[in-house]
Amino acid sequence: MRVMGVDPGLTRCGIGMVDGGIGRKVTAVDVGVVRTPQDMDLANRLLRVADAAERWMDAHRPDAVAIERVFSQHNVRTAMGTAQAGGVVALAAARRGIPVAFHTPSEVKAAVTGNGSADKAQVTAMVTRILGLRVAPKPADAADALALAICHCWRAPLLDRMAKAEAQAAAARARYTERLAEQRRAGGTRNSGGGQRKAVGE
Amino acid sequence: MRVMGVDPGLTRCGIGMVDGGIGRKVTAVDVGVVRTPQDMDLANRLLRVADAAERWMDAHRPDAVAIERVFSQHNVRTAMGTAQAGGVVALAAARRGIPVAFHTPSEVKAAVTGNGSADKAQVTAMVTRILGLRVAPKPADAADALALAICHCWRAPLLDRMAKAEAQAAAARARYTERLAEQRRAGGTRNSGGGQRKAVGE
Repeated sequence: MRVMGVDPGLTRCGIGMVDGGIGRKVTAVDVGVVRTPQDMDLANRLLRVADAAERWMDAHRPDAVAIERVFSQHNVRTAMGTAQAGGVVALAAARRGIPVAFHTPSEVKAAVTGNGSADKAQVTAMVTRILGLRVAPKPADAADALALAICHCWRAPLLDRMAKAEAQAAAARARYTERLAEQRRAGGTRNSGGGQRKAVGE
Repeated sequence: MRVMGVDPGLTRCGIGMVDGGIGRKVTAVDVGVVRTPQDMDLANRLLRVADAAERWMDAHRPDAVAIERVFSQHNVRTAMGTAQAGGVVALAAARRGIPVAFHTPSEVKAAVTGNGSADKAQVTAMVTRILGLRVAPKPADAADALALAICHCWRAPLLDRMAKAEAQAAAARARYTERLAEQRRAGGTRNSGGGQRKAVGE
């Protein structure tokens, strides 16, 4: 599975492409950083980020795109710009029918270093080691993008299995509710006084 | 000048198209709301909003797109979604070379009602009156989108004039700085000891 990891941003947007193999084997395909000038207007900065993301998607054809989920940052304006940069990348993926997943910074750090509050240096060091790179990816945004892609490679099978289990549970619950309703209908007038009785599992 | 006003959102995104005439004359062209299902994944919700915005742009060919600037809301997740919805609309405009402006809610309220902290009912009432509509636009997102477009029609000439004045001031400052530097060079050794002296106006 090929995963495109994206550390969204307007000033610097990290993009990392990683191939996930059997088990925890992962290899780096490409990595880079998209920059947009700070004195450019927001709409055109978003256009630059979107264009770059589309070029990366069309060149490398990832099976999934993993984007860092933005939470509140110190600076609200920066947080909004970061969220919007991630949004236009998600849009580009949706246009191509590529599934998009969002991972929080602590999920990424935990996956890659085993510690959800690891610092940037630890993340970079582990990414370098996991991918067997001779030099550490720079700047931090590039390393973070690779970390996101690695995190997705490792979490995706887990998330898939969870989604399937949840779907099965929902189907079982629906069957049970349906059977209850049938019994109630069969019971006829006996239960009709119950009125708004709530079905189990709802 | 035709302006497309956008009250961004994932659950409901208001879009209003307004023609600005001479003075403060404005007329409504079209208004609507784009909705996306809450159980749909974020990337596909953004795609729905972007597709709708593009259809509106291509059908009505606005000269400018005015989007509400999102600040922090009670719910960080909602604020991010709102910012991202606005971001993909801005991107669609940038792709078409249509200039994009952002106005804050209080700028919009002040422009339309004269009061920066007017409530939704007041905004809707004034929008209905300004555009001479027989029925009030509903829901509030539709009225807000029209308010944004009206606000832009009225603020745009002002903002243009301000931008021109600022550009002129910057040019004058640059000429002055250049002349100072020339004088310093002409002054030769006399001023050379001054070292890091700062030019006036920098």
